[in-house]
Amino acid sequence: MVFKVTVNSAWRATRTLWLLVLVSLSVCICVCRASSPQEDSAMENIVTEKKAEESHRQDSADLLIFILLLTLTILTIWLFKHRRFRFLHETGLAMIYGLLVGVVLRYGIHVPRDISNATLGCPVNASPATLLINVSGKFYEYTLKGEISANEVDNVQDNEMLRKVTFDPEVFFNILLPPIIFHAGYSLKRRHFFRNMGSILAYAFLGTVISCFVIGLLMYGCVMLMKQVGQLGGDFFFTDCLFFGAIVSATDPVTVLAIFNELQVDVDLYALLFGESVLNDAVALVLSSSIVAYQPQGDNSHTFEGTAMLKSFGIFLGVFSGSFALGVATGIVTALVTKFTKLRDFQLLETALFFLMSWSTFLLAEACGFTGVVAVLFCGITQAHYTFNNLSPDSQDRTKQLFELLNFLAENFIFSYMGLTLFTFQNHVFNPMFIVGAFVAVFLGRAANIYPLSFLLNLGRRNKIRSNFQHMMMFAGLRGAMTFALSIRDTATYARQMMFSTTLLVVFFTVWICGGGTTQMLSCQRIRVGVDSDQDNSMSITEGPERRSTKQESAWLFRIWYNFDHNYLKPILTHSGPPLTATLPPCCGPLARFLTSPQAYENECQLKDDDSDLILTDGDINLTYGDITVSTDASGAHTSGGTAFAGAATSDDLDRELTYGDHELVMRGTRLVLPMDDSEPPFTDLHHGMRM
Amino acid sequence: MVFKVTVNSAWRATRTLWLLVLVSLSVCICVCRASSPQEDSAMENIVTEKKAEESHRQDSADLLIFILLLTLTILTIWLFKHRRFRFLHETGLAMIYGLLVGVVLRYGIHVPRDISNATLGCPVNASPATLLINVSGKFYEYTLKGEISANEVDNVQDNEMLRKVTFDPEVFFNILLPPIIFHAGYSLKRRHFFRNMGSILAYAFLGTVISCFVIGLLMYGCVMLMKQVGQLGGDFFFTDCLFFGAIVSATDPVTVLAIFNELQVDVDLYALLFGESVLNDAVALVLSSSIVAYQPQGDNSHTFEGTAMLKSFGIFLGVFSGSFALGVATGIVTALVTKFTKLRDFQLLETALFFLMSWSTFLLAEACGFTGVVAVLFCGITQAHYTFNNLSPDSQDRTKQLFELLNFLAENFIFSYMGLTLFTFQNHVFNPMFIVGAFVAVFLGRAANIYPLSFLLNLGRRNKIRSNFQHMMMFAGLRGAMTFALSIRDTATYARQMMFSTTLLVVFFTVWICGGGTTQMLSCQRIRVGVDSDQDNSMSITEGPERRSTKQESAWLFRIWYNFDHNYLKPILTHSGPPLTATLPPCCGPLARFLTSPQAYENECQLKDDDSDLILTDGDINLTYGDITVSTDASGAHTSGGTAFAGAATSDDLDRELTYGDHELVMRGTRLVLPMDDSEPPFTDLHHGMRM
Repeated sequence: MVFKVTVNSAWRATRTLWLLVLVSLSVCICVCRASSPQEDSAMENIVTEKKAEESHRQDSADLLIFILLLTLTILTIWLFKHRRFRFLHETGLAMIYGLLVGVVLRYGIHVPRDISNATLGCPVNASPATLLINVSGKFYEYTLKGEISANEVDNVQDNEMLRKVTFDPEVFFNILLPPIIFHAGYSLKRRHFFRNMGSILAYAFLGTVISCFVIGLLMYGCVMLMKQVGQLGGDFFFTDCLFFGAIVSATDPVTVLAIFNELQVDVDLYALLFGESVLNDAVALVLSSSIVAYQPQGDNSHTFEGTAMLKSFGIFLGVFSGSFALGVATGIVTALVTKFTKLRDFQLLETALFFLMSWSTFLLAEACGFTGVVAVLFCGITQAHYTFNNLSPDSQDRTKQLFELLNFLAENFIFSYMGLTLFTFQNHVFNPMFIVGAFVAVFLGRAANIYPLSFLLNLGRRNKIRSNFQHMMMFAGLRGAMTFALSIRDTATYARQMMFSTTLLVVFFTVWICGGGTTQMLSCQRIRVGVDSDQDNSMSITEGPERRSTKQESAWLFRIWYNFDHNYLKPILTHSGPPLTATLPPCCGPLARFLTSPQAYENECQLKDDDSDLILTDGDINLTYGDITVSTDASGAHTSGGTAFAGAATSDDLDRELTYGDHELVMRGTRLVLPMDDSEPPFTDLHHGMRM
Repeated sequence: MVFKVTVNSAWRATRTLWLLVLVSLSVCICVCRASSPQEDSAMENIVTEKKAEESHRQDSADLLIFILLLTLTILTIWLFKHRRFRFLHETGLAMIYGLLVGVVLRYGIHVPRDISNATLGCPVNASPATLLINVSGKFYEYTLKGEISANEVDNVQDNEMLRKVTFDPEVFFNILLPPIIFHAGYSLKRRHFFRNMGSILAYAFLGTVISCFVIGLLMYGCVMLMKQVGQLGGDFFFTDCLFFGAIVSATDPVTVLAIFNELQVDVDLYALLFGESVLNDAVALVLSSSIVAYQPQGDNSHTFEGTAMLKSFGIFLGVFSGSFALGVATGIVTALVTKFTKLRDFQLLETALFFLMSWSTFLLAEACGFTGVVAVLFCGITQAHYTFNNLSPDSQDRTKQLFELLNFLAENFIFSYMGLTLFTFQNHVFNPMFIVGAFVAVFLGRAANIYPLSFLLNLGRRNKIRSNFQHMMMFAGLRGAMTFALSIRDTATYARQMMFSTTLLVVFFTVWICGGGTTQMLSCQRIRVGVDSDQDNSMSITEGPERRSTKQESAWLFRIWYNFDHNYLKPILTHSGPPLTATLPPCCGPLARFLTSPQAYENECQLKDDDSDLILTDGDINLTYGDITVSTDASGAHTSGGTAFAGAATSDDLDRELTYGDHELVMRGTRLVLPMDDSEPPFTDLHHGMRM
């Protein structure tokens, strides 16, 4: 009875509030848009001030539109989640609301032309970035905003309004993408990620390159055909096609992953999809920038040339490895700082430092000419692997929650902006032939990525990627924030404008159709849902020796890395692992003593007593110590270790280590929202927090 | 032994890291600054792209400088806190680092002049905001950046570099101030704030106006004298003097409050200072904008005119009350949304909604022409009073921590920017006479605010504001973020430039000298430290009837408000308080049933059993119910209630209510950093978190 009353009143209240928000949104749009700048005073000073004020009010109103859109989205998502409605993800919803507002802005409001817009007719020969104008002795400085096509000169003011709503595309790369990508890296599920690392790297690197070239070639064919038919209104070179291939190769299955998470779909499939999507954003980004950098010598600027090609390849390698190195380096610096200072006593300082260091990765990479987003990704992974263990439990929560919130806001902002931009962007070029070609190419490119690679990978994998998994991965090749941001970054030429318009449609289609059909696809492909990762482990026990040998085969590279990480990096960068005095050669004694934290020695004694069953039979003494992070006040650490071991007691040490690491993550960050928290029964998440 | 090793290694490591950060900072500054834009290709397209890239790298480097500065500040603060070093607060430190970097930027680096800067000599009669330039058939759009004085035309590029580091002042009002002010409102200690509300309002409103006019008059005298001596290089009107008075009347004793908090200084003194500083920012802001709006008719634009004066006063009232209403309104909307939806099941959505609604207050106010910062302040207070109770415990933590972090970052950013700007700002006008005059005026203005008002207030107060408290309040009149932001907002004229330079010095002086001398001043004035608020309560018990009558006298206005709040607002906006069916007249039955949450009925039954000792003897039946917020899953609420009642069992109901509200705040937000958390023994805060 009481429950019913609440729900009913909740419904009514929600509806009322909704109406309220909608009304306020439209009123706000209309009022704010309608107020045109007026000049009622003769004094120039005041005019300028008023204008600045007007422009500021305008900006506030523009931003307010987005904020209200996001608010509306949140309320609707809540309703959907409340009713377990899975057809439409929040991002899809954000796009729909964005579309609606875009329609209103585009067709609903016209701003009268501003008379103060003067056209200067005097003979200038260049268009410099900065212009000084001498007005009767006073110098005014002007900055270049962009070129305006001759037929649009008349309605500049109207465009001005729309352009104001259309943010500077660099906002995406400098403000919105970094938290999203950092969050992805910071919340990467490490156990299953490392277990499938080979396959993930193959899909992300090889797969993206394959996809890029397949799409590029197909689009080139399409463009040639269009030229024959006479449908092409401007230049469209092969490099443009390749560029298009690169930008639409960045997958972003956020919708699918959210549903996977909710339904607890098979963990390996989840790891493959998530790992691929995280890394291939970085690959696609660097790939696209190296394609742009392809510049053959001389005038024949769009023909093939070996040296230019090599140079592009060099740029790809240089930028990628540079960004990688920078990201890892700042991650390591942060780990060292948090290890060797007692910052953990002051959680606010700790969280602030963590935030600033992670942000500085981005800025440092950008300032050095590398790619900030890529650096931030690897910084996030490093922070999760090392720094996270040095933080106080409180800061672990804080940082996770902070980046979760930023990710949520940025993601929904981008998607609602996408919807808006379909109507407010002024230079759309919708070419039906190109669009159809693009859809086919995107489909085939994804297929050329998944199926051949899966076949090759299955040759080496004992734990095969089954065909229904392959179909699901094929289906989950959604395009999202990264694709959009890359395509809106440069819309100067005809080719880029056509790409942008087409990309928008691809994103809409994949997010709505593929995203909405995920549950259907899952049941159609008979993919297990409600899988517990512990259950998954116990299944691997029945498979026993077979699985173990798989790991021995495929993970040799990883095993080398693991030994190095466990013996040297973890002890140096965190309070866990064996003391360095035991792992480093004796000559490095003083250094080892300096770098080893006192906790590591305590670790050693403790573990020799408690965890002697951890010793491996292969005689590798360095693998003796469990990788337990003993923090100064985390008395719960051992309990959590207990649970973890109970679940994976018969797996091999490597697996146990990873399991443990993950569980610890979950235990420490209570109510913390990991992308796949499989230590709880299904559907309890409604009470414990929302997962993305 | 172990401890010593850790500290030693921590010291060494910190020193190393410090060097590292310093070196990287200077390398970064030099490298990034030295790279001048080059044009090595003939293709215009590529040139533009390269330029954009260059400019972006520049921006990243600029921001990176600040981030590294903040990182450095954090590490140093940690060291200071670690060693209980209280002479220099983090904000003072941030300023010092900013100064150092400013010196390097100003004198260390020179950027060669860019040849692409063209000066247009053709006859233009106006300087419109947007300029279209016809370059051989192509139209380019330029936007006005500002006026350049004729003698600076030659080194525009050098200035360009410095101007890039010097952000757009609106950044302060739109990005940095709002989180600071919201945090102040959101963390306002309600019990002691309400207890001293009359005095706080008097200091904040009357006091600020008095201070503004006293400083304005004194400065006008000073300016007149300067004109006589011939030291004045430009116009300086009476309105300018008043404006200066308004901007330096905004006190910001963040340094002092941090020390008060650490030393647990008398709670009433804390409440007076904090409450005054929070509110007087708002008053000074609105006051300064209404002084700017003072525009007499006709040409005699700087003489006194009654109607214009009235208009200014009207603007003050209108803007203030409008901003107040807007802030409260969005706070109420948020409270309603969180009450009537079950958003609390999804903490991420809840936090995001809270954040967005609070932000939209700011934008809405700005879009409507009110003052966003003022709206945000009152929104914060409303959110703390109502919405906070509807949030899930997890979201309560999250929102508190989020705004705490934002406040910390924004505040330190502003202060380090202040240091930087002393050297990088290009139009400083340091006039010794004006500076001396300003210091005297600021001192006298503060005195004219505190001493007469305290005298008047003491006439009505039984619990007097003692003279040592008055001296301390006088001493704690630091100037900070708001004063700086107001003074940098407009530096177009000679008068404003002189004001800005002087304000900077006032801020530096007060933060370093007054901030650093707080502990000395406290001991010199024999102000009690280590005061527990419970102890304070028990002392009031010994005073007994006397105190009670004080409250009866002074709080009549507050009592009316309290009854209204407790009987109508709290039940409507939160799950607490008596059911509306009991407090509203019977005719409103259906509405009351709709608005009352089921928890309120449960409340009623529960409280009648448990808390019958709460019933007052004065027969006011509406005050019967304790203001307990029963949340669906907060089983700890009653425990916390228990502690609170134990501490204040003999106070009157009103006081208990407030006590209870506060304690609940503390209990719910575990490890949460309230400005004055007096429920814990002194000095444990080092282990529990840092307070601001």
